Amino acid sequence: MDGKIKILAFGGSFRNGSFSNVLLNEIKYHLPANAEIEIFSLSKIPMFNQDLEQDPPKEVKEFKSKIKNSDALIIVTPEYNYSVPGFIKNAIDWASRPYGDNSFDEKPVAIISSSTGMHGGSRAQYHLRQILVFLNMHPINKPEVMIPFIDQKIENGRVTDPKTQQKIKELIDALLAWTSRINNKK
Amino acid sequence: MDGKIKILAFGGSFRNGSFSNVLLNEIKYHLPANAEIEIFSLSKIPMFNQDLEQDPPKEVKEFKSKIKNSDALIIVTPEYNYSVPGFIKNAIDWASRPYGDNSFDEKPVAIISSSTGMHGGSRAQYHLRQILVFLNMHPINKPEVMIPFIDQKIENGRVTDPKTQQKIKELIDALLAWTSRINNKK
Amino acid sequence: MDGKIKILAFGGSFRNGSFSNVLLNEIKYHLPANAEIEIFSLSKIPMFNQDLEQDPPKEVKEFKSKIKNSDALIIVTPEYNYSVPGFIKNAIDWASRPYGDNSFDEKPVAIISSSTGMHGGSRAQYHLRQILVFLNMHPINKPEVMIPFIDQKIENGRVTDPKTQQKIKELIDALLAWTSRINNKK
Amino acid sequence: MDGKIKILAFGGSFRNGSFSNVLLNEIKYHLPANAEIEIFSLSKIPMFNQDLEQDPPKEVKEFKSKIKNSDALIIVTPEYNYSVPGFIKNAIDWASRPYGDNSFDEKPVAIISSSTGMHGGSRAQYHLRQILVFLNMHPINKPEVMIPFIDQKIENGRVTDPKTQQKIKELIDALLAWTSRINNKK
Repeated sequence: MDGKIKILAFGGSFRNGSFSNVLLNEIKYHLPANAEIEIFSLSKIPMFNQDLEQDPPKEVKEFKSKIKNSDALIIVTPEYNYSVPGFIKNAIDWASRPYGDNSFDEKPVAIISSSTGMHGGSRAQYHLRQILVFLNMHPINKPEVMIPFIDQKIENGRVTDPKTQQKIKELIDALLAWTSRINNKK
Repeated sequence: MDGKIKILAFGGSFRNGSFSNVLLNEIKYHLPANAEIEIFSLSKIPMFNQDLEQDPPKEVKEFKSKIKNSDALIIVTPEYNYSVPGFIKNAIDWASRPYGDNSFDEKPVAIISSSTGMHGGSRAQYHLRQILVFLNMHPINKPEVMIPFIDQKIENGRVTDPKTQQKIKELIDALLAWTSRINNKK
Repeated sequence: MDGKIKILAFGGSFRNGSFSNVLLNEIKYHLPANAEIEIFSLSKIPMFNQDLEQDPPKEVKEFKSKIKNSDALIIVTPEYNYSVPGFIKNAIDWASRPYGDNSFDEKPVAIISSSTGMHGGSRAQYHLRQILVFLNMHPINKPEVMIPFIDQKIENGRVTDPKTQQKIKELIDALLAWTSRINNKK
Repeated sequence: MDGKIKILAFGGSFRNGSFSNVLLNEIKYHLPANAEIEIFSLSKIPMFNQDLEQDPPKEVKEFKSKIKNSDALIIVTPEYNYSVPGFIKNAIDWASRPYGDNSFDEKPVAIISSSTGMHGGSRAQYHLRQILVFLNMHPINKPEVMIPFIDQKIENGRVTDPKTQQKIKELIDALLAWTSRINNKK
């Protein structure tokens, strides 16, 4: 970590005009100078099949490689049926395997969720946090970014709500500080 | 429900020799005379895309139709990363949509989980139960069938452990009784 | 259940002017003619000690007796530290014991939570729902009454927000319908 | 932290011969030379009352003070009704208050749970982990010490099962390493 802290962000959804994809992209605009970001699209990750885990499809290999090469992760998730969407969990399932080759091991991580309702995807976040225990990741506690009424806070592919922008910025800063802290770097 | 109570069972996994697929199939052998079962394979359900939810792929239409025509459901799930596997959640996400056409609405349901470790998939079950609240399903409370060390209880495509067989039978009986009860049928 | 459906409500908190106590009391004003309610105060329930469970303090005996004599329950809970307050969990722990004498067994139940923040105590509700599985209770799914910004919706010991009043009324109606349904009563 | 790392352990239960109290005490026997431990008994902590939080009972003041003066915490918990016992949650509620004076803030922590059944208190642990997010604590991920069939692993106030002893030792070591790591100490 002599150079910049490398963040890999993933999640979002496959819907055209997905709010979560806008949130993924929004992260770019709030990065401090000591960080860089890559956004990984899950759109080509196939359905998990354990029979293939020793030699997974190339999109999965790429996903695993990018996770391993990152210093920290940001997961951006909508909430489906009070939990993590199947396609995000599916990507996590791939990258956690095979046994002994969990790409997420020891990675610092932050979560951003949103919903068009009042809860901002909080239920998906707590399920995700339990998943992170098994993955041996290190999530930040604060700020918890759970954005309610997201449809009213986005326009032309950008977050327009200043409070939401501020929260995203604080989350990035907290993740970077936490990443340095648990890696004993200055 | 003049005739038999129709159970639809789904879940399992795509691995050859999947323990959960054996469990799905095992249900057939413990059905009482007043019930019938169909097992629905999730292997052709594609990744969820909300843009397609108004006119989903035909496999999803078939899944939704079979859920609606059932009297009760059994979900058989392994546990991946302390939660429901992505591919099972993905199938649930499809069938819950579009808004106003949740196929699971008001269905009685029971859950069977297993693992090769000591917890029997309990963590997946509690996540699934939270999902069921949103889906407005009515799960049975008892018995909770969480089968530990499943690899030691299966041979040649059948459950060989008598205690596990007994638990599955009790679960089916409890689901049928609950189905009759909440539908005010004798 | 020839006469009225008997609801027992409990929860609240020990703070003077507790918002949850106002919510407990508010239920009274929205009862239909076929129901009656008693509110049980937890203020005299001591700390649980398993050594005393076979012959618990008289306040616990009274609590257990009132639960058993009720047809349905309403639990009104604030959220402390993302979960159920200790004093409410403590009362539940007493009434669930000793083994074989769980007072909550088979009771229909509804939950009301609130907070001064935006989440309305949702996190306490999902923890409580997991607890209800063990207690073998039957919670309603909808409506989920999670009241955010409760401090702005209460005045002089009454709920003043019409939408919150309406939600409480809907919850009571849903609980009564569910109680009749699972008891096979008209 | 020039000297030893100070661990404060609490939890247990009020039952005579409590398995959790034995576990609390067992920690002492597996401490490495660079650590010291104090066990805090919750037996005198009264029921939480928010009206008293600005000037709490002296037992609560003592509990808060000891938490603040510790470098790391170990919570030892049984599982009641699929969650944290009321009396442990109650102690946590006290020490987290008043607003702005959360004694747990930034503390590294490890959890030990047990049960006489097969799950070892895992459900209590995951609820506790969600609580820790709000408290802004930093739990270790591994090892997760969830001890099933605890009644068969204890004799005369000591843990007699070598595997359980080993797990407790590993947990302490992991907590100490994590404490040094997040505090940037060697």
